Amino acid sequence: MSIEAKFLKNVWYLSAWLCELASGSLARTIAGVPVLFFEGEEGYAAILDRCPHRFAPLSRGRVERGSVECGYHGLVFGADGGCIRNPHGPLVSALRVPAYPVVQRHDGLWVWLGDPEAADPALIPDLSFIDRTSPEARVAGHLENEANYMLMVENIMDLSHADYLHPTTLGNGINTRTKGKVASEGGVISIKWHADDETLPPAQNAFLPEPGQRADFRNEVWWHPPGVMTQRLMFGPSGRLESEGADSRTAHVMTPMHGTRTHYFFCHTSDGVTRDPSIAPAVLDILLSAFVGEDSPMLAAQQARIGDADFWDLKPVLLPIDSGAVLVRRRMDALIAAEHIA
Amino acid sequence: MSIEAKFLKNVWYLSAWLCELASGSLARTIAGVPVLFFEGEEGYAAILDRCPHRFAPLSRGRVERGSVECGYHGLVFGADGGCIRNPHGPLVSALRVPAYPVVQRHDGLWVWLGDPEAADPALIPDLSFIDRTSPEARVAGHLENEANYMLMVENIMDLSHADYLHPTTLGNGINTRTKGKVASEGGVISIKWHADDETLPPAQNAFLPEPGQRADFRNEVWWHPPGVMTQRLMFGPSGRLESEGADSRTAHVMTPMHGTRTHYFFCHTSDGVTRDPSIAPAVLDILLSAFVGEDSPMLAAQQARIGDADFWDLKPVLLPIDSGAVLVRRRMDALIAAEHIA
Amino acid sequence: MSIEAKFLKNVWYLSAWLCELASGSLARTIAGVPVLFFEGEEGYAAILDRCPHRFAPLSRGRVERGSVECGYHGLVFGADGGCIRNPHGPLVSALRVPAYPVVQRHDGLWVWLGDPEAADPALIPDLSFIDRTSPEARVAGHLENEANYMLMVENIMDLSHADYLHPTTLGNGINTRTKGKVASEGGVISIKWHADDETLPPAQNAFLPEPGQRADFRNEVWWHPPGVMTQRLMFGPSGRLESEGADSRTAHVMTPMHGTRTHYFFCHTSDGVTRDPSIAPAVLDILLSAFVGEDSPMLAAQQARIGDADFWDLKPVLLPIDSGAVLVRRRMDALIAAEHIA
Repeated sequence: MSIEAKFLKNVWYLSAWLCELASGSLARTIAGVPVLFFEGEEGYAAILDRCPHRFAPLSRGRVERGSVECGYHGLVFGADGGCIRNPHGPLVSALRVPAYPVVQRHDGLWVWLGDPEAADPALIPDLSFIDRTSPEARVAGHLENEANYMLMVENIMDLSHADYLHPTTLGNGINTRTKGKVASEGGVISIKWHADDETLPPAQNAFLPEPGQRADFRNEVWWHPPGVMTQRLMFGPSGRLESEGADSRTAHVMTPMHGTRTHYFFCHTSDGVTRDPSIAPAVLDILLSAFVGEDSPMLAAQQARIGDADFWDLKPVLLPIDSGAVLVRRRMDALIAAEHIA
Repeated sequence: MSIEAKFLKNVWYLSAWLCELASGSLARTIAGVPVLFFEGEEGYAAILDRCPHRFAPLSRGRVERGSVECGYHGLVFGADGGCIRNPHGPLVSALRVPAYPVVQRHDGLWVWLGDPEAADPALIPDLSFIDRTSPEARVAGHLENEANYMLMVENIMDLSHADYLHPTTLGNGINTRTKGKVASEGGVISIKWHADDETLPPAQNAFLPEPGQRADFRNEVWWHPPGVMTQRLMFGPSGRLESEGADSRTAHVMTPMHGTRTHYFFCHTSDGVTRDPSIAPAVLDILLSAFVGEDSPMLAAQQARIGDADFWDLKPVLLPIDSGAVLVRRRMDALIAAEHIA
Repeated sequence: MSIEAKFLKNVWYLSAWLCELASGSLARTIAGVPVLFFEGEEGYAAILDRCPHRFAPLSRGRVERGSVECGYHGLVFGADGGCIRNPHGPLVSALRVPAYPVVQRHDGLWVWLGDPEAADPALIPDLSFIDRTSPEARVAGHLENEANYMLMVENIMDLSHADYLHPTTLGNGINTRTKGKVASEGGVISIKWHADDETLPPAQNAFLPEPGQRADFRNEVWWHPPGVMTQRLMFGPSGRLESEGADSRTAHVMTPMHGTRTHYFFCHTSDGVTRDPSIAPAVLDILLSAFVGEDSPMLAAQQARIGDADFWDLKPVLLPIDSGAVLVRRRMDALIAAEHIA
């Protein structure tokens, strides 16, 4: 099976933060499918961004309230994909583009590319910490990266990499020393790094009451297939985590664009930024400098070395730090196999 | 059969306007074949732009009157492709590049890539309206576009697209309201939009005696395989088409470069420009703004959505406006199949 | 067999001039293999530039004396490819990258990608003229070119091309008039152009005692598989070659990067530059203007015309000037076939 085909269909893909749809529409390729998202009468709609007549991208046309007019020959399609105006003849049923279930949730737009009957919004992972945070205290963004989405998922499922790739911000050896504990429950795979009386990485150390003091540390990630992860990070002076600790939650959502390019949606919240939203830009700077400056080139270089090869065919040497990542990859292999058999 | 192979060989391809050969030679890829056009003793010559010795492009060498010296090892070839000088040994018969019949006609150079025995110049479609127009009254050009040549042919065979893609110049709904009548005769497929007492598109309306007045309209296109089309457009105040009408003819010639890139040669003439050639630049501006600004990006986007897929495999929904385009495409399918069987 | 696969493994590839390793390491793709060269305790080392854990390029990590730390998860590898530090667990034997025999010789670094048992340094062709020349009198460099390495080898094995491609410097017809004599001995193929009482090309003529006078000329190239060539050029006033002649030696080493891109290492020495090293920059200018300005674009254009085709499938017309090049290519075909059977 080619890497291009390794996308689950019957899952919700986070496709945009709502602010990205300010103009009323957005064209974006999700798991290999060019999708046009636009405002309909009853919320957002998502349809294949390809006219069924002569395959022009509908996103090159005129998007109005609840409808899209193809810019090439004027066919108009509604939010359900049906043609609602054909200047050249009758409205035959063949004049239809695939429409995809879409749900607006957690400040984002989620699309379901598989069987519409199965598109249960309850299957969207719970990112309600976003909703509970005031918009100005959310540190969020959308980046694209030249790597397969599974490499990007595994990057988060093994945060020991921070000790080596982000030594000036997010890592100082603590994730390596504190071996992650992996668990799997109800389809969710978690990995937790818990340490007491440790020294913290620079980015967290700076927020301690007395920088340099020893601290307790709780770093936890939960993965939901195919690429939704929530991270909770708590730290505080040794023995005073509950009373004086800092607490943050971050959504890391990896949505495949195609085989070697990925949408990375992130949303970071913390009690610190909630108390003082004016520091949000500084926190964003730390996240961007780590991801854009360090993760992104490393992941793209990793992808380049892998090339078109199948990951397992290259016989990676597995380490204890990979236990979460490997469990995720094997789960995904099983889910994809199951979907293709079904 | 791959898209790359879908080129007829036994046809004349318009390959350059003569003015493009002012320097004496021109290298251009026609239907997948790199061709070097150059001035010979008896008119222009066309040979494969690849030395038979070590495959250097001959166009990187020295082109002189009737001969081309390879810039790598000095072999000299004449207009018939035969080697006329070999500094390294005898003039053996194997030292020969394919030469292609070429005809200078209608201000352009036409090449025949197939069986030379069949290269009858009488098969070149009649574009003699160009010859009857003084050079300063011709609005002509050569553009390249990132789309398969059939998409570009179909774009002209269905001018209803002007109503949506060119609403500020060439379209106002008139081609849509006036359904095109398709006919086929002797290998030529025509489509005609005839309307009486209509409102004209902006670009034509501006040329009416009283802009805004109702008018009669005759818009006609004739296609010759594989990509030569002539368009005649007449319009004038209602009932006074004969006495006060404007009359224009345009050649639209689509010559494949390779599977997804096309040479577009156009030459527009009209009684208006013939009377006053000083308006030629303004007319050229209208044509370029429509093609370069509107058609070209739409056709390239259409090609990108089609990708490597076969057009029919994508199951396009055919509309009445496609009748001319579909007839052309099926005719081409038959001609290509016949050439490959023969 | 694809062009990509046509690389010998059991040969020494010149991979860098030592000055290119001034920073202590260099990442370079050799014959399709990404290799990291770095200083070890006992000379240079060469290992696969791909971590066995998750395939990050090791060259993105930290290179220290005799070891390389992967920048992604901190695994440290030694000069023999073995893992010498694993922050995440035991040093299992699987934690190993392929290491390649490497030899520092003739001011360059040579790597052996095949069976290490067979890596006999005595197989490195003798370029000791480099060692006998003081560093400031060596005119050397590394260029990359967009052409298969065999095209670049053949370019040197047929210097008649200089008469056409470099008419203002290295050629004036002398190599064409003086047919090269080809010989093969012990796996080395040589071609020699010997002429007496001839006129010299501009670049050599300028160095005659009286420019314009007739001269004797000895131009000789020896090829060692797969792409190491030494050239000796002697010339002097007619009859006084021994007493007043100039003498130069040049190494032309073509190391494949991948199928259509080649490393070109050159090192030119001459008695003239040895006597007066201050003219080295001027000599370098002549070499670079010929190669970068004339050979490189011609070879890239030749490669583009060949595309993915097999060279023989295109049925090149062989000339007497090709006798050396053809012998080399057939020898390479045989060596590659033998290595694949073995």
